[in-house]
Amino acid sequence: MRYTRVAAGGMAVWGRVHDEHVELLSESPLAGRPTVIGTVATADAVWLPPVVPPVFYAVGLNYTRHIEHARALGNTAAVMPERPEIGYRANNALTGHLSPIVKPREVTGRFEAEPELVAVIGRTLRHATHEEARDAVFGWTIGNDVSARTWQHEDRTFWRSKNADSFKPMGPWIETDVDALAQTTTLRVDGRVRASFPTGGMVFDPYDYIVEMTRYLTLQPGDVLWMGAESTCGLEPGNTVEVEISGIGVLANPVHEAAAPPVRHAQPPKGNEP
Amino acid sequence: MRYTRVAAGGMAVWGRVHDEHVELLSESPLAGRPTVIGTVATADAVWLPPVVPPVFYAVGLNYTRHIEHARALGNTAAVMPERPEIGYRANNALTGHLSPIVKPREVTGRFEAEPELVAVIGRTLRHATHEEARDAVFGWTIGNDVSARTWQHEDRTFWRSKNADSFKPMGPWIETDVDALAQTTTLRVDGRVRASFPTGGMVFDPYDYIVEMTRYLTLQPGDVLWMGAESTCGLEPGNTVEVEISGIGVLANPVHEAAAPPVRHAQPPKGNEP
Repeated sequence: MRYTRVAAGGMAVWGRVHDEHVELLSESPLAGRPTVIGTVATADAVWLPPVVPPVFYAVGLNYTRHIEHARALGNTAAVMPERPEIGYRANNALTGHLSPIVKPREVTGRFEAEPELVAVIGRTLRHATHEEARDAVFGWTIGNDVSARTWQHEDRTFWRSKNADSFKPMGPWIETDVDALAQTTTLRVDGRVRASFPTGGMVFDPYDYIVEMTRYLTLQPGDVLWMGAESTCGLEPGNTVEVEISGIGVLANPVHEAAAPPVRHAQPPKGNEP
Repeated sequence: MRYTRVAAGGMAVWGRVHDEHVELLSESPLAGRPTVIGTVATADAVWLPPVVPPVFYAVGLNYTRHIEHARALGNTAAVMPERPEIGYRANNALTGHLSPIVKPREVTGRFEAEPELVAVIGRTLRHATHEEARDAVFGWTIGNDVSARTWQHEDRTFWRSKNADSFKPMGPWIETDVDALAQTTTLRVDGRVRASFPTGGMVFDPYDYIVEMTRYLTLQPGDVLWMGAESTCGLEPGNTVEVEISGIGVLANPVHEAAAPPVRHAQPPKGNEP
């Protein structure tokens, strides 16, 4: 099954996606047993992030080639992880399939896509075994961990570099019936393949992370776990970026240049750089 | 007014707090115009975190003395911030007034309380002026940014050190009618004062943060902004820690030692330290 959320009547509504139509659902499949309350044509669907997580977890460095690449570019923190250590992203940055990635006007340097597998948690989980971790994954979706590298290297946290509005496209849906780690991830810009790698070629897989994480924390239904990328590529306003994971789908987003901010911000607020 | 959430009939219910009783509300005051649907005695209330934020923002270093203290203890990253750069905490770690802070058995070294003012955002906000930032704060609550320092210094992120379950007590309520920056923050352990400082003696105040943050991101109703601490103190199982901010209230939590994990975890999962 493919579950997502779409905009309908000004509301976010859960849906079950078929080739020709999306069944609108009475509630989240993560929370209950939804009934069908309507349909929209799949071609007309307005795609929202398939879930807004209670906690948005993200793996940093999880593919050998990405770690070597980051180190070659001067990121001295890019060393092979010895154990699964999780990080975070922020919900404000989420956007849906076909919605624009908006590049802020202040971004300088590399502005890049990172194609990622996303595990969606289906049940409450603490002190999980590997078997319980497997059972707790409701399904899989696709994420693009858009990153502004200059901010990533200069700022104290990832707040602007990875969590500016629209920097976290996710979707188009959650696929519940796929062997996600046996797939291929492909990154395309304007139709041209820029990267392709085995989705499951990770240093630590999602179950390794879930087992380690739940030694210290409780996972909840709807939590998402972005699994990192092997390869990245640059983005420019005017591009359309696609992340495909075979067996799941294609997450496509146009890249826009931000509009000018309100004139009242011509004077930077107190505390900004001179 | 004082708003919070309490457990009632197995549900989380919003409440308006008075000296003798808590009025139970039909909905969040952040989302609508709640009506009173019942009452409980204040002495019997089971306190929940007053809000579960869409995004949980936290300031790291925001008081001069705390920065000097961290640097003296070997944290070379503890330098005076030149601009308001925000970080994150995770909702799994939230717990309410009077609920236990559970110290994991694996924690070694300093296990500390950090008493913090928390701003609760009341409206959707992007490209805010200072005036709009002031208008957008719905009210103020209290947070204790419990931190396991060995993990904080050794791990790649703050995932275990600051976001293990129960490490983020928040409450007891949101006070809407207080000049929060004119108050005094006091930290007590087992009734003994361990720190006291002017709440508003910050490097950057909440409005500075909101103005800078909303240059890049959208704040939403219910988002919280933890403002950092000037002083910290150590905690041990058996202690009761209280954070008081005059004009707001007292957040009190006992400290417990964690129970032994399930026996199946005697063997560490793949990817752990040897």
